[in-house]
Amino acid sequence: MKQEIIVFRYGHREVRDYRVTSHCALVSRALGAKRIIICGEKDESILNTIKGVNERWGSKFKVVFVKSWETELKKIKKKGYCLVHLTMYGEAVQEKEEAIMKHKKICVIIGSQKVEREVYHLSDYNIGVTQQPHSEIAALSIFLDRIQQGKELGNVFSGANRKIVPQKHGKKVIGLK
Amino acid sequence: MKQEIIVFRYGHREVRDYRVTSHCALVSRALGAKRIIICGEKDESILNTIKGVNERWGSKFKVVFVKSWETELKKIKKKGYCLVHLTMYGEAVQEKEEAIMKHKKICVIIGSQKVEREVYHLSDYNIGVTQQPHSEIAALSIFLDRIQQGKELGNVFSGANRKIVPQKHGKKVIGLK
Repeated sequence: MKQEIIVFRYGHREVRDYRVTSHCALVSRALGAKRIIICGEKDESILNTIKGVNERWGSKFKVVFVKSWETELKKIKKKGYCLVHLTMYGEAVQEKEEAIMKHKKICVIIGSQKVEREVYHLSDYNIGVTQQPHSEIAALSIFLDRIQQGKELGNVFSGANRKIVPQKHGKKVIGLK
Repeated sequence: MKQEIIVFRYGHREVRDYRVTSHCALVSRALGAKRIIICGEKDESILNTIKGVNERWGSKFKVVFVKSWETELKKIKKKGYCLVHLTMYGEAVQEKEEAIMKHKKICVIIGSQKVEREVYHLSDYNIGVTQQPHSEIAALSIFLDRIQQGKELGNVFSGANRKIVPQKHGKKVIGLK
């Protein structure tokens, strides 16, 4: 089953978080999420990064900025999304992924700085990708790969103006427009 | 089979790359690599970050800085490691992972800025985790999860002074020393 997946990035700070949040956005796009909702300071540079990537490599992936995590998460929940908060304090992904992947609409929540206690309670699942500190980008990637059982790796995006031809050694890119 | 895995981070720049390279180091540690070799400017803050994480959460994961990628990669290859360079221009991970995971010693190479042409040729495999631009942290995570078939998610690190007890909602950490 192909789920509808969105990503919610909690607590973005302009400039300081630019690179990590861009990685989160690019990973969400590449691994099949429909959009990323970023809670925090609006950051034009991220919008521009994604706009450029969509133009060159295809897809209609969207970036949205919101101010209140609480209002937004409650709205998302009301729309029928299963809220999955990725945190090292949560239950093991390998034990819960089967139950989660049955949901048709999934919102993956990833934090940066300290996440409010209420996010843990509002979420349907709190999921740990290991119980070790590492990276929200890594947790997001592994989670998306697992709940889609690797099918997202073969995604093809429409509207690209170039395409990679995979090579054993070297680079090959062909123009499409 | 449990492989011996090391990670080679190409082209680190001090300050500018601190967060992304720390994520790479933390992911390597959490997902079972033995050490990360960072090629570029020596960065005390990364050494300190990992030292602190090892003290609190266990493991003897090591960070090593080297100056020449060429000397180092040739040395690693001589020691019998299979060199796997992660790049969007490479062959699809889902098609090559079975062959790669049979190797006993694997060195995963991840770049940041432009990677020299020779790295593509020196590597035994050039592997794409999707043919889309995203994140070296994401590519590394998915690759490590796949070649270890998820077994790394259950790793337990010795020497920790605390331990997480996974929770449905909330946080629980217990002291071990």
